[in-house]
Amino acid sequence: MKKRLTLKLIAKELDVSVSTVSKALRDSAEISEDTRQKIKAFAKLYNYKPNIIALSLKNRKTKTIGVIIPEIVHHFFTTVISGIEQAANEKGYHVIICTSNNSFDKEVINMEILANGSIDGFILSVAKETQQKKDYHHLTEVIEQGMPLVMFDRVIDEINCDKIIIDDFLGAKKAIQHLIDKKCKKIGLITTIDYVSVGKLRTQGYREALKENNIPADEDLILKVEDFDKSEMEIQSFLKDKKMDAVFAVNEHFAIYAIKAFQEQGLKVPDDVQVIGFTDGELSKRFIPSLTTVNQHGEEMGAQAARLLIKKLENEDAEDEPFETIIIETGLVERNSTKR
Amino acid sequence: MKKRLTLKLIAKELDVSVSTVSKALRDSAEISEDTRQKIKAFAKLYNYKPNIIALSLKNRKTKTIGVIIPEIVHHFFTTVISGIEQAANEKGYHVIICTSNNSFDKEVINMEILANGSIDGFILSVAKETQQKKDYHHLTEVIEQGMPLVMFDRVIDEINCDKIIIDDFLGAKKAIQHLIDKKCKKIGLITTIDYVSVGKLRTQGYREALKENNIPADEDLILKVEDFDKSEMEIQSFLKDKKMDAVFAVNEHFAIYAIKAFQEQGLKVPDDVQVIGFTDGELSKRFIPSLTTVNQHGEEMGAQAARLLIKKLENEDAEDEPFETIIIETGLVERNSTKR
Repeated sequence: MKKRLTLKLIAKELDVSVSTVSKALRDSAEISEDTRQKIKAFAKLYNYKPNIIALSLKNRKTKTIGVIIPEIVHHFFTTVISGIEQAANEKGYHVIICTSNNSFDKEVINMEILANGSIDGFILSVAKETQQKKDYHHLTEVIEQGMPLVMFDRVIDEINCDKIIIDDFLGAKKAIQHLIDKKCKKIGLITTIDYVSVGKLRTQGYREALKENNIPADEDLILKVEDFDKSEMEIQSFLKDKKMDAVFAVNEHFAIYAIKAFQEQGLKVPDDVQVIGFTDGELSKRFIPSLTTVNQHGEEMGAQAARLLIKKLENEDAEDEPFETIIIETGLVERNSTKR
Repeated sequence: MKKRLTLKLIAKELDVSVSTVSKALRDSAEISEDTRQKIKAFAKLYNYKPNIIALSLKNRKTKTIGVIIPEIVHHFFTTVISGIEQAANEKGYHVIICTSNNSFDKEVINMEILANGSIDGFILSVAKETQQKKDYHHLTEVIEQGMPLVMFDRVIDEINCDKIIIDDFLGAKKAIQHLIDKKCKKIGLITTIDYVSVGKLRTQGYREALKENNIPADEDLILKVEDFDKSEMEIQSFLKDKKMDAVFAVNEHFAIYAIKAFQEQGLKVPDDVQVIGFTDGELSKRFIPSLTTVNQHGEEMGAQAARLLIKKLENEDAEDEPFETIIIETGLVERNSTKR
């Protein structure tokens, strides 16, 4: 029985990283000559066939789109997929999904699996770890080989490709302005660490809104959650004795944890403290008090991503055309966690 | 530049059927010598590597599992995928996902796309439409071709394959018994129409618990929701003037809608009426009052499905072994929507 060799198996066998194998096979100068030769010899010995995208792309259409998302148990990403499916199906395309689980290695491997003749192009939102490592060779590789790539939500500025983003900066700014309009003066921010691009942009929007209203940013009122699994506790202890009159959280979970923490302190939302979240999920709608949020329009984002990719796939002259970045406007959905 | 061909492309190019190409490449006597030679020459010329399952299965391992789920914007299914990923990754397998969006046609097409050389085996929960149509030819086909299939949650009794189910019947029975133990006498049921297998089983569990406690089932207290999109309104009007002391709902959305409807009538949960849901999602945990639910253990279900499939894939004598059905036991998670 023949075993099909994958990047991962080569990496494991030679005790190097997946990224090293991938780069060595492309003769990257980042990898020492010695290592490159060793890896190439091994690949040759076992008859390893690198991605055949370069070979297949011009001649073969699978009419299938590959989607890679960082998380699957995540309402926003599932709504994006739902939008991709609808728009793709309308044009006669199918969709295959992989999840990186926020791991760089898994993202690289997923791309390898899908690019291996199964799909015509990618729609992708990068893993947290990829943003942290700043290693984008797998993305540049598929682009160089001529396979269209559309990034959404968590995009990489340095990568030249089509992109669909929401206006994270403006969305956050709008939310803060809304709170300022309601006479809030001490507005807290619960965000993620900076390498997550969307968290960073939302933080910038928060700062900008304060600045425009001549409210000095108080670093004591900003929490950058390190560990999502412990976020509920982090938020609870952060909110103790802070005397805020409002909080803006960069996702709905953080917002709900904040409301719970306030309630445990005997504070009423929205009477004593107002809260705005980001992402309009089921939780925001159904929670009591229902949550005022910045709406990301996930389905719309997915549909636009699919349409943009298919346009590239079906346009013979696509290579000569400039890349597009479509910005989906956010909306503020007012509910009961802010005053009317 | 070499072309990578598929059966379909060869068929199109030579103006014959896919089945003719497939048979010719296997030297089937059903195809004339002349046609066989023509097809084989063409395949050779373009370096065609057959990758249809019948030819490839014994010789090639992709180390990839194909998962088809009926819905993606659905917490339970995403937790199952999460469990599949974890267990598969532990064994060095990758996972690709397609969603049928509850459409029979999409399910058939997804299976075709994935079975075409991309994966070693399937994990699947069938579309509502498939259950309604009772057309299972796509499932029997892959099984006959020797590709292992594990069904989970929404399974088909008539199909012989490995299955992972939860004890929907017992789970529902447990929930009703819990309400009866708390002195409830008029217990309503909010369920789905019968062709959804899990809804049917949960309804049976409801009836059985009542019967064992000598409480006659009152058909006026049973709502079979027809249209998920209009379920909130259906539930609202169903619960008007019904004077129940408890409600059991077969999913968490129905349960939350029920609580809201009661609250609008001025009834307090759990003081005036107690509510139990099914599926332990974020909503159940975070809603106020938090929801007592029957826990489906989605991750556990996914992990078991992956392990069962991989066992089949890696066992040379798998074909001779009987199929297994693993039943995951449900648990009742007590929260604030029932009395303590």
